[in-house]
Amino acid sequence: MIKQPTLLLNKERFYRNMEKMLAKAAANNISLRPHFKTPQSHTIGRWIRAMGVNQITVSSLRMAKYFAEDNWDDITVAIPVNILEIDLINELAANIRLNLLVENIETVDFLSKKIASPVNIVIKTDTGYHRTGVAYDHLERIDKIINKVEVANHLQFLGFLTHSGHTYNARSNEEIETIHNDSLSKMATLHSRYSKRFPNLMISVGDTPTCSVMDDFGVATELRPGNFMFYDLMQYQISACSLDEIAVAMACPVIAKHPQRNEIIIHGGGVHFSKDVLEFEGLGKVFGFVVKDDGELGWSEPIEGVYLKKLSQEHGTIKATTEFIEECQIGDIIKILPVHSCMTADLMKRYLSTEGQWIEHLSGVPFIE
Amino acid sequence: MIKQPTLLLNKERFYRNMEKMLAKAAANNISLRPHFKTPQSHTIGRWIRAMGVNQITVSSLRMAKYFAEDNWDDITVAIPVNILEIDLINELAANIRLNLLVENIETVDFLSKKIASPVNIVIKTDTGYHRTGVAYDHLERIDKIINKVEVANHLQFLGFLTHSGHTYNARSNEEIETIHNDSLSKMATLHSRYSKRFPNLMISVGDTPTCSVMDDFGVATELRPGNFMFYDLMQYQISACSLDEIAVAMACPVIAKHPQRNEIIIHGGGVHFSKDVLEFEGLGKVFGFVVKDDGELGWSEPIEGVYLKKLSQEHGTIKATTEFIEECQIGDIIKILPVHSCMTADLMKRYLSTEGQWIEHLSGVPFIE
Repeated sequence: MIKQPTLLLNKERFYRNMEKMLAKAAANNISLRPHFKTPQSHTIGRWIRAMGVNQITVSSLRMAKYFAEDNWDDITVAIPVNILEIDLINELAANIRLNLLVENIETVDFLSKKIASPVNIVIKTDTGYHRTGVAYDHLERIDKIINKVEVANHLQFLGFLTHSGHTYNARSNEEIETIHNDSLSKMATLHSRYSKRFPNLMISVGDTPTCSVMDDFGVATELRPGNFMFYDLMQYQISACSLDEIAVAMACPVIAKHPQRNEIIIHGGGVHFSKDVLEFEGLGKVFGFVVKDDGELGWSEPIEGVYLKKLSQEHGTIKATTEFIEECQIGDIIKILPVHSCMTADLMKRYLSTEGQWIEHLSGVPFIE
Repeated sequence: MIKQPTLLLNKERFYRNMEKMLAKAAANNISLRPHFKTPQSHTIGRWIRAMGVNQITVSSLRMAKYFAEDNWDDITVAIPVNILEIDLINELAANIRLNLLVENIETVDFLSKKIASPVNIVIKTDTGYHRTGVAYDHLERIDKIINKVEVANHLQFLGFLTHSGHTYNARSNEEIETIHNDSLSKMATLHSRYSKRFPNLMISVGDTPTCSVMDDFGVATELRPGNFMFYDLMQYQISACSLDEIAVAMACPVIAKHPQRNEIIIHGGGVHFSKDVLEFEGLGKVFGFVVKDDGELGWSEPIEGVYLKKLSQEHGTIKATTEFIEECQIGDIIKILPVHSCMTADLMKRYLSTEGQWIEHLSGVPFIE
């Protein structure tokens, strides 16, 4: 069945990951608003809807439109508003509950003038990652944004959202906990300042490391992770998942063997895996771990000393043990856990489930203006 | 016109790059068989055909099929044969002159049994890059492959192909020259050994750094570069091109400004640029150079001290000068020279030419089994 680089999806692991996160949200009595930038698929979205989820997060307006077309009607676009896409914003706002992120006054002024239907405004808050957002203690700016939103037609202030992306630098549960507690205490100051004025104040948190490792989310009203559905080697290195929670694997054909340097060449390169890379002690740069086969579409645990060490556009170089190379034949399929599942899925444009079903991905949908 | 991350293509620079390489091939009295893994576009392919090119290189059988459908009928698939795709090989071989790369006996044995129409066999030769291929001096294996090809039905031995990918580690013309001379002298030993037996022996060379910088190609019968059509910052760092030869640039909307840390956030992340990264002295990690605007769809030279320093899935962080940040407004478009144009084009799925024409890319074509 597999003849070329293929992204396998283990549905059982996916469901297990979803159920665990849903249980955690329920235990905290808060919502799960999963980030669909990871699966980017109508089909996978429907599986998630069937589990009771009715609110989602996306990372672009195009992705919001894609999911709105499949009847999702409560969508947070978790990137500061791109004002150039006002037509698409108005198109979406006319039909769904659209939550937009703002972090500056200019955007609020622009939306005040141009928005044609009700939208909810969430303030993107920086609690330490320093990618973007208003600093949590920049209260003058926060107040100014809220006040402008409050007087604008069609704009409704909803609350605060933060992304503690610096957990991606963590390498243990303790480091994640430190970041989580710090970020949450900052969100708590906003909650205590604004929750009387806005009784239904949204406090949205949710990078995958934090949501995977922590159990208490304090003042948060919703969790927003995405990568946890599939996980990957990056999350494993962060200590956010175990290897048997990783729900996707690449399957790539062997096209050459170089036993004299313990290397195997696969068809599978940067255009399939992405160039995301990790350093592992004793191995150096790693683009993926080779795993044992478990039937044609399945896999089990990694094989020690066998990993993807180099990528060019379409070639991948596997570093292997002598034993592995001896058993490996030209035309075999090698299965590999990817470094960053969101990027790999985006490049691969579709999935093949362990049940043999092809599952579509937004990036495989033709680009229409 | 530009509202979201868009890949601009400067046709004038593209034509200049093509003409220069065609002139170089003509001066050496050898063929140019450009690598279409870079443009991956029917439209751009037609421009190239109109310049007199009738032989091309691709990096996958799927890409070969895509171009065969647009009437290219002499195609080299420059990756060792994936025997699992024998059906597609037979489909293509029935209709076009198909040149396949082999580097091991198993594949030749397999093809001998399964091939149903004539194909040409090229031996992928390792002259020092050590990614894949038969070592140029592994004559026993080379002879064995040739002899098996010679007795097989439908297989025709064509010659040798090498890719000196280690020029990508070069940082000066001198370093490129050293690699080029070494590689070419190794190909010359093969030429002198086999050219009597095979008077039309193909000697195919052609990484972009070498083809850009060198003027003499010795025994080579064809050049096979691809990236030179567009170039990029990687080629600039290698010293293979000047900045004003780079024919593609990303255009990305400004969505946030952080003057306190001299940063601007654009919509434009790893799913647009790819995660290919360079180190530049004094700057550190660089994912792109910001360039000056030249009309809505054009650009000119880089702006000192303004560059793309970080990428997440959909966000990009621009490090900027105070002056640049002061002039920059939310909703502006920032133009950026990419690190690796082949990967960026593959992710962007289409181009917008400086004449305002949308140009398709294979990766935007729906995936059909």
